[in-house]
Amino acid sequence: MAARPVRITVIGRGACGPDLAALARRAGAEVARRQGVLITGGLGGVMEAACRGATETGGFTIGILPGADADDANAAVTVPIPTGMGEARNVINVRAGDAVVALAGGHGTLSEIALALKAGIPVVACGAWDEFDAVRSAETPEEAVAMAFSLAEGRTP
Amino acid sequence: MAARPVRITVIGRGACGPDLAALARRAGAEVARRQGVLITGGLGGVMEAACRGATETGGFTIGILPGADADDANAAVTVPIPTGMGEARNVINVRAGDAVVALAGGHGTLSEIALALKAGIPVVACGAWDEFDAVRSAETPEEAVAMAFSLAEGRTP
Amino acid sequence: MAARPVRITVIGRGACGPDLAALARRAGAEVARRQGVLITGGLGGVMEAACRGATETGGFTIGILPGADADDANAAVTVPIPTGMGEARNVINVRAGDAVVALAGGHGTLSEIALALKAGIPVVACGAWDEFDAVRSAETPEEAVAMAFSLAEGRTP
Amino acid sequence: MAARPVRITVIGRGACGPDLAALARRAGAEVARRQGVLITGGLGGVMEAACRGATETGGFTIGILPGADADDANAAVTVPIPTGMGEARNVINVRAGDAVVALAGGHGTLSEIALALKAGIPVVACGAWDEFDAVRSAETPEEAVAMAFSLAEGRTP
Repeated sequence: MAARPVRITVIGRGACGPDLAALARRAGAEVARRQGVLITGGLGGVMEAACRGATETGGFTIGILPGADADDANAAVTVPIPTGMGEARNVINVRAGDAVVALAGGHGTLSEIALALKAGIPVVACGAWDEFDAVRSAETPEEAVAMAFSLAEGRTP
Repeated sequence: MAARPVRITVIGRGACGPDLAALARRAGAEVARRQGVLITGGLGGVMEAACRGATETGGFTIGILPGADADDANAAVTVPIPTGMGEARNVINVRAGDAVVALAGGHGTLSEIALALKAGIPVVACGAWDEFDAVRSAETPEEAVAMAFSLAEGRTP
Repeated sequence: MAARPVRITVIGRGACGPDLAALARRAGAEVARRQGVLITGGLGGVMEAACRGATETGGFTIGILPGADADDANAAVTVPIPTGMGEARNVINVRAGDAVVALAGGHGTLSEIALALKAGIPVVACGAWDEFDAVRSAETPEEAVAMAFSLAEGRTP
Repeated sequence: MAARPVRITVIGRGACGPDLAALARRAGAEVARRQGVLITGGLGGVMEAACRGATETGGFTIGILPGADADDANAAVTVPIPTGMGEARNVINVRAGDAVVALAGGHGTLSEIALALKAGIPVVACGAWDEFDAVRSAETPEEAVAMAFSLAEGRTP
């Protein structure tokens, strides 16, 4: 069987301005360029911009939604997974990735970083969260995704 | 944006003989032939045979796993989602589909049928579960998947 | 340390008439009379009547709620657990009991019976669900609770 | 009906030395002294010491366990809730409290603080986590629990 595609979860603020959206879009595009599957929480802000970057680049995106309605997903989610589990979907969102790329965000993003670290899933941050020793830092979204792929491939047999 | 692919969840026994596996494989193949995304619980038996049918037909499969390890997924799962949530993943498994196709199974399958019906997600059974009024019945896997697509499209705007 | 109290989950229809409510109330009362802790889904119908029976008898009740708001709990829930997880709370509801007593109900109740059986938790039904081989049957709520205690004590070391 | 008891979740490291355990025990004792119900994750370290403090003071404790086995609960848990949901139980653990008291901890504790803040549940820290603006700080466990009760009562109608 062919190897599975690498799965990269991109997390960050659910509502964001153009600068953060541009970073997220570049991250999503880089995941797709490397033939990875992009996982996000499926809603707006960083999640939407990352999905848009990925689908514009021919990629495939999965949105792990907190609500029970697939129509909550942003327009660039290829496959919505409407969990109906509220914030408990954050656990699935990070576990679904071989590695996590974290952009700027709030308490939801922080919970995802902490849940990933607790689960032993590597986290690479870009322009944020550099106060956490266990989180790797990258200068650009492309570098963050490259690091995430390296870490993911080290992790996947 | 292009319409999203229809998502069909196929459920059934986690360990099965060749006859049931053949039905599951035909169900998975029909989902792929119709350009749908196949959702399963990601493990063996019906889940594995359905995934195999789908990927042999060029389709894409998602496995919503009970455990936390992506390597638990059967070899024909394209994207494993290791939830780490045990049987609570059954809720996600059925919610992730626009409609559910049920083959023969045990208590886990029964829980998924009941959860789908409770959530208002249509269920089509093939060769099993005909004691439930709210479950539609089909004679063949192809007919079951065709009915599931009709129901799913009625449901998705 | 003193042994923990036996935990009995009572499940059934979320809206019910006086006859079913009377059965539920007797079941809850019997759990309390035997010094057990009553677990329910915390809402109305069978859940509420069972909680009422327990608290009237000096017992203690826990309500595992689907929503995120503790105020959704019926007035006879001593400790609400607002999970915010929707129907995934059904998994917790049955796992929280050493044994389950099932009264008449719909698809939600059926999902809980199936999840309990899948998890190896004994289920005793009273006046319903006698089509399932793996479910024990009792004639009265008091008998159902007595059987549930016996099964729970066999299960708890 | 009598008002429900206030529910206070105490979180912190799952393995801890005598100093941290002493703080946790005082926190648990204070919850019980104020007639609250103590919620914890049900395992060792801070969770166990807090439960012990509560039960020594005549209190009642609930342990929201990650695993499916009630026997994983520490000996001072009155009612174990074995969720079988892994770290997703952290969501329930914080939602089950009207307010959260955080002692020192690692990534799991951090995820619970972030999930609580995201859910709008007040968090009071004692001797840790003072880098978070949204977390209130207290000097002693007794003060932390007093603040948590005030916040909880402001929150519960």
